[in-house]
Amino acid sequence: MEERNIVLRELMKLGPADIAEILEDLDQDQAADLVHRLFLRKAAAEPLGEMDPDDSAELVVHLDRKEASQILSRMDPDDAADLLLELPDDIQKELLSRLSRADAKILTNLLAYPPDSAGGLMSPEVVPLSLSMSAQDAINHLRKRVQEAETVYYAYAVDDDNHLLGVLSLRDVALADPNRSLRDLVIRDAVSVHVTSDAEDVANMFDKYNYYALPVVDDDNKLLGVITFDDIIDVIREEATEDIYGLASVPSEESVDTTWARSLVLRLPWLYVRLLTALAAALVVGLFEVTIAKVAALAVLMGIIAGQAGSAGMQTVTIITRGMALGELDRDLGWKLLGKETLLGVANGMLIGATVGLITYLWKGELLMGIAVFLAMTVNMIVAGASGVAIPVIVKKLGKDPALVSGIFLTTITDMLGFGLMFVIAMWLMPGI
Amino acid sequence: MEERNIVLRELMKLGPADIAEILEDLDQDQAADLVHRLFLRKAAAEPLGEMDPDDSAELVVHLDRKEASQILSRMDPDDAADLLLELPDDIQKELLSRLSRADAKILTNLLAYPPDSAGGLMSPEVVPLSLSMSAQDAINHLRKRVQEAETVYYAYAVDDDNHLLGVLSLRDVALADPNRSLRDLVIRDAVSVHVTSDAEDVANMFDKYNYYALPVVDDDNKLLGVITFDDIIDVIREEATEDIYGLASVPSEESVDTTWARSLVLRLPWLYVRLLTALAAALVVGLFEVTIAKVAALAVLMGIIAGQAGSAGMQTVTIITRGMALGELDRDLGWKLLGKETLLGVANGMLIGATVGLITYLWKGELLMGIAVFLAMTVNMIVAGASGVAIPVIVKKLGKDPALVSGIFLTTITDMLGFGLMFVIAMWLMPGI
Repeated sequence: MEERNIVLRELMKLGPADIAEILEDLDQDQAADLVHRLFLRKAAAEPLGEMDPDDSAELVVHLDRKEASQILSRMDPDDAADLLLELPDDIQKELLSRLSRADAKILTNLLAYPPDSAGGLMSPEVVPLSLSMSAQDAINHLRKRVQEAETVYYAYAVDDDNHLLGVLSLRDVALADPNRSLRDLVIRDAVSVHVTSDAEDVANMFDKYNYYALPVVDDDNKLLGVITFDDIIDVIREEATEDIYGLASVPSEESVDTTWARSLVLRLPWLYVRLLTALAAALVVGLFEVTIAKVAALAVLMGIIAGQAGSAGMQTVTIITRGMALGELDRDLGWKLLGKETLLGVANGMLIGATVGLITYLWKGELLMGIAVFLAMTVNMIVAGASGVAIPVIVKKLGKDPALVSGIFLTTITDMLGFGLMFVIAMWLMPGI
Repeated sequence: MEERNIVLRELMKLGPADIAEILEDLDQDQAADLVHRLFLRKAAAEPLGEMDPDDSAELVVHLDRKEASQILSRMDPDDAADLLLELPDDIQKELLSRLSRADAKILTNLLAYPPDSAGGLMSPEVVPLSLSMSAQDAINHLRKRVQEAETVYYAYAVDDDNHLLGVLSLRDVALADPNRSLRDLVIRDAVSVHVTSDAEDVANMFDKYNYYALPVVDDDNKLLGVITFDDIIDVIREEATEDIYGLASVPSEESVDTTWARSLVLRLPWLYVRLLTALAAALVVGLFEVTIAKVAALAVLMGIIAGQAGSAGMQTVTIITRGMALGELDRDLGWKLLGKETLLGVANGMLIGATVGLITYLWKGELLMGIAVFLAMTVNMIVAGASGVAIPVIVKKLGKDPALVSGIFLTTITDMLGFGLMFVIAMWLMPGI
């Protein structure tokens, strides 16, 4: 017991992020035991707040409910809300019911916002200042309330009804003449985000303005909370992971830590979706079985035509969906890009088509087959380029995530068209086969 | 002229990030003209610093050299270095030669660090504090030097030889009793990054510790500069874009703004690489032309087997490379994942294989063909799972970016194996064909 306490004491010298990492590496029982002992020293809330909410929620399930609710009440409300969101409904309710009425209300309010909105990211712990204060007043006021605030690098000026008037940088306030009025220091045209804004748009604002924190307001411009850059780093990483996973049909819940049984359940539906599209393409090929039996080379060539157009189209889809995620794509650009990618399809298609056509001619000695390959490749590449723009734009208009499903639609088109075109054009140019 | 000045005056009321966005939207001549007029009001440096260095460099090329060098001298050194890096060598040299010796030395030092290292990200503008100061001394000192510092939300304590001793939060200093010694306020075990650290590792540290800024030190722990979160947001986004592009063989220089001619030049080499791998796979199919002529259905089935294993393998590659990018993959986990993904290959392969095998049997009425499909799919999926782990790990060991090339290697394997297996197993089970 003595020895374990020494370990605990050493552990507590580490920062919360390091303790969080250790908790994530331990197995469930060990981690719950460690949290219990950290709790007894009032040191459990911060490390849990640093953990991935999935992981901290799994841990909290194994804790004594009374202990868990006390830890929650000491966490930053935005972290506590993220954790609660991952808990089963009954445990979530029980923990909320054990909190003080004030704490429960703050968390219930936060839980009402979608997790991928500004409201879901914000912390309500913001210390508002009145413009009638001097710099020294403000410092004194902040000094008293330093424990409550999520950030005091920025403070926000509000009127008596909590309407946001402007932003104050702690740097400006701390380094100003102590008697100066906040009126001289406030930045009036403060950039703020609306509580219903999409997390991706909020991330783009942080990227553009390089602010450490942004205030969150409601329809009436009343100050509701603050979003800090560290929440945004998480958003940017998660959105990027989702987009990367989407391209390869990987379910967004997966990571390198997922168990194999869970991975199987998560990935299998996607593989069956892909299979379905492959079978649809196979149906097209099935129509031409007789032709394949006569000219087996066409079976080899159809795969290349479908594959190359699929690759080129995925290049287009990738650039478009990434541009959308980074907020670089506006309406005018959409039409311009449709033109550009179609043109690229013509150029790429003719160049790649000529190469493969020439190889076909050299291989089989049939000029007409070479020409058929050239034509099929060119047409399929043009369609791939145009679809590569059109599909993500349409998917987005329908309110779905374009990075997630565009690839599947595109390769279905390029496969079916690639197979079909090869045979139709070959049979038209070479009526004998 | 009068009217243009009114527009300019309105424009200058906007923040530098907004002006930067306007500059990026204007055409070259208009943008250069606007920068010139901003320069006359000493307001050009900040917006140029907010622009993407590619874009600001293109603009600077069109400016008067003397004017350009004066703008550079007013920019934050890390932004100025990023811009210089994008300029043609002769212009870079000319602009450096026009700077004051001190400014030129700072920038030349920064340019010596690789752009994707901590040194390439840091700003050398950091105000060090001595621990012999009181909180009030520190505030007074910072007040005087507020213009020079990239950030004063954190200050760094150093000894007489500039060795980093610890970090001071402006919040702690400003809100402390003015007479308290910095010795009581300093955090001694400050997290710092080494100047040669990889940008991706630095980003992972920001993600883990949620600091607003991290100090950069050399081998002797001497303070060289500071990296702030806004640089890291850019790093995270760029790394994510690179990884997303890598999966789809899109060159990293591309964005939605790239001209079509440039896109053609950038993408074509990748399409030819893909073509080369497709031709290698076609060679395998070519070996079995006689068999295809006899059993055309095999041509349809081989595509499905290759495609499904390619999809499953890409799921694995994606999870592994993303885990690597997020710093979640250590050595032990590599072996564990090899086991997991191979096992998944067995399970996925048998399930998908049984499905496609059954469909084949129902379609052709040939039980042996169905069994051949089942076996070929299972083996190819197992190889895909194992290769999906092995390829990125090996590519990374060789010092290359796994997200960039793993996909091409994987699909080459699954294509060649998918095609070959289908025929070899079918010919073995059905000697008659």
